[in-house]
This record gives sequence, structure tokens and C-alpha cells, in this order.
Amino acid sequence: MKPTIEICLSPSLLHTYNLEGKIAVVIDVLRATSTICTALHYGAEKVIPVATIENCLQFKNEPNHLLAAERDAKLPEGFVYGNSPKQYMTDEVKNKTLVLTTTNGTKMLHLCHAAETIAIGAFTNMNALAEFLLQQQKPVLMACSAWKDKVNVEDSLMAGGIVHRLKNDFTMACDSSKMMEQLYGLAKNDLYEYHRMANHFGRLQNLGADFDLRFCLTENETPVVPVLKEGALIK
Amino acid sequence: MKPTIEICLSPSLLHTYNLEGKIAVVIDVLRATSTICTALHYGAEKVIPVATIENCLQFKNEPNHLLAAERDAKLPEGFVYGNSPKQYMTDEVKNKTLVLTTTNGTKMLHLCHAAETIAIGAFTNMNALAEFLLQQQKPVLMACSAWKDKVNVEDSLMAGGIVHRLKNDFTMACDSSKMMEQLYGLAKNDLYEYHRMANHFGRLQNLGADFDLRFCLTENETPVVPVLKEGALIK
Repeated sequence: MKPTIEICLSPSLLHTYNLEGKIAVVIDVLRATSTICTALHYGAEKVIPVATIENCLQFKNEPNHLLAAERDAKLPEGFVYGNSPKQYMTDEVKNKTLVLTTTNGTKMLHLCHAAETIAIGAFTNMNALAEFLLQQQKPVLMACSAWKDKVNVEDSLMAGGIVHRLKNDFTMACDSSKMMEQLYGLAKNDLYEYHRMANHFGRLQNLGADFDLRFCLTENETPVVPVLKEGALIK
Repeated sequence: MKPTIEICLSPSLLHTYNLEGKIAVVIDVLRATSTICTALHYGAEKVIPVATIENCLQFKNEPNHLLAAERDAKLPEGFVYGNSPKQYMTDEVKNKTLVLTTTNGTKMLHLCHAAETIAIGAFTNMNALAEFLLQQQKPVLMACSAWKDKVNVEDSLMAGGIVHRLKNDFTMACDSSKMMEQLYGLAKNDLYEYHRMANHFGRLQNLGADFDLRFCLTENETPVVPVLKEGALIK
């Protein structure tokens, strides 16, 4: 029997899914999970996701740790590192530990603790992630971080893109997985143009983050599969 | 300025929307809201939506009242009237009051109490409803009942169909409204065939409800717009 694949469109819908024995793939395309993939791809040793700014600041005296935070798409006061993947495309991150807190992505990560394995998904690691899930042969829940619990285009479509790649080898077990697989089909030829309709696209463009938008909406730029081990995301 | 139109995909997401001053359109295509439209179209005076079977039974001694209930797509013990629109395509319902409790639809109806107006949506009243909303010129929230809080194809697409009809006159204000408007475009030429992929389609077919599926997935069979007034849905 084929393993199942499902898409949970928001943290508020997580209670309608069972996480036990599953691989949960946490998605926050704009920009937390794209940033996590980027940091690891550029050589960071690990990324520690934390829920609050206070939790993040507790690491401030640790050697080789970079403290990064984002709230409402902006850099909170006192932080140098934020949620832009651009900041991590440098040798500076090599062998460093990134401690990261974001508005949505790190929340979903913590909510998925009951899953057997937690992995990270973004357009930038699509094919590598699909390959990993195919090898594991376990039921998969694609867990969209959404925007303050509101369903968004970018996370939903990235989840749909994984279903699109795996649909012959997995059973699409919820209606969301089938709908988003189809929508991805409409969007895949030009993800950047398609996402102009996304509310968060406009929000980030107004903040001058067009480089990030182009990068985060390009497939396979960071072919790594971050997995949570002992509280940290590693390759 | 154009009024906004949004789609809330599940009762669990309702807290991410503001209902104040809006028309909430409650949707439970398979089958509560299709049944409500059908009963009113065939001459029922009103439909009283109630939350529990106990609430429903409180009306048992009222003259001209039909008591109807559904749980998990089935008729609970002791009930003759259920959630199948087929049962209401008869002169028997003329001038009657239907008291109805269902698994999902009546729940969403009660959750939307903060809206300025509550209307009922189904594929069977698509055009009449779109016309009504266009006349009102108020912000609209399409409120999908879903299946036990899990997002479903049929309610999402019906909501998308209304957005599709109104998109030139309203502003699509959330990502869900844009995504479902597009999906409706893929499905509209054969709603019945398209919905074969829906989980609840299979559930109802196994219960022998194919007539209901064909009826509920056909547009404009019951051109009425049920609106809630003093606890009852009227034309």
C-alpha cells in the first residue's frame, strides 16, 4: 500500500490531522523555511528554531552563534540577522549555529512535535525534499505555517508542488492535497508571476524585499533537506 | 471603492476573519445548504437551523413543523426527515417549517452570528446568490462549513464560484478567495466529474446518495436566497 500524503493549510487546522508516525514537513516559504535551507546550504552547522525573542537572546553569549529574529516581516530592534535568505548567502555562516525566531514558521515547527520526523520545505529545496520523502516511504503531512493562521498562497502551493511530484507513489488523503496539487500545476511555469496575487507578496515588496521574493519563489536553489534532531535543524 | 470578498475555508479559520458589517454566506454543499435551498424553493415557509438533536426534538409538538436531522451523513434514530434534498422536492413541504440539525452546516451558521446578515450558499443557488450580493454592495465572507473542520473541495469550490462571478465588482481580499476562484475555473464545466476527487463524494456514494450528489453539484436548480431572520431562514 502506498503511504498517504496530506496538506494542512494552517496551524489552526492541525487538530484535524493525526501526526503520529508521520513525517511533518513544515513550510514557511516567505521566508523562514527558505532562510533555514539557505543557511544550511551555505554551510551553517545547524539552525535552532525558537519561539520567542527572549528564547533567542538566551544564546547571546554562546560562541559561533548567530541570533536572528523577525516579527511582522521586519527586523526587531537590537537584531542584525533577520529572516532574509540573502543575509546567509555568505561564508560568514560556515560552521555557525543560527538561532532563529519568526512570526509563523517557528510556531508551526513547535506545533508539529508529535510527528515522528520533522523536515523543512521550501520551493528552494523542492526536488531534494521530494526525493527524501520518496526514500522514507512514510506517511507525510505537509504543514503550512500560513500568515497568522490565515491560509496563504505560497505555503499552500509549495505543499502542492511536493504532492505533484509524489502523487504516483503516495495516496492523496485529504481534499486540500488534491486541490493544491492542481493549483501548483497552474502556477509552476512562473512561480514569481503567479505569486503577485499573494497578499504577502505585496507586503514584502513594499518592504523592498524583491530579491528575497525572486529567490524564495525559485525552485531548487538550495538542495538540502533540513531535519530536526535534538532541537536543531541539520542537513 | 469596491466591497471585499473573502473565503473562510473552515470553522477553525473563522477567527482569522472579521465578521462585523459583513454578509456571511454559509456553505455546506453536501448537503445541508443545498437541502435548505431546496425546501424553501419547494415552498417551505422557513427553515430553523438548530445545533443539537435535543434542540430539534423540542419542536415535536408544534403544528406544521417537520423535524429533520443528520449525523455523519446518516439519519439518526427516530427521524424520518434527513439531510437529503430529494426528500423536500414535494408539495408536502409547502408552508411547513423545517427544523434542521446537521453535522457541519448548522454549526457554521451559529458561529457566524456576528455578521450583519447571514445568507445560505450552494451550487443550486449560485446565480441568484451572486445577484443578491451584487445588489447589497456590502463586504462578503464566504463561510465554508467543511467536514468536521477539515477543508473540503465542494464548499471551497462553491465559494470560489461566487468569487468568480463577482471578481470584477468586488476586491478579493484573502489568498483563499483567489485560489478557490481559480480552482472553480478548472471545475466549472463538469462539477460532478470534478468532485469525484472529493473525500465526501465517495462517502455519500457509498451511502447510495448518487441522486443527491448529482443534484447538489448542479448549478441553479433552486434559485432562492435563504437569509436568516429572527432565528429562521426565509426566502
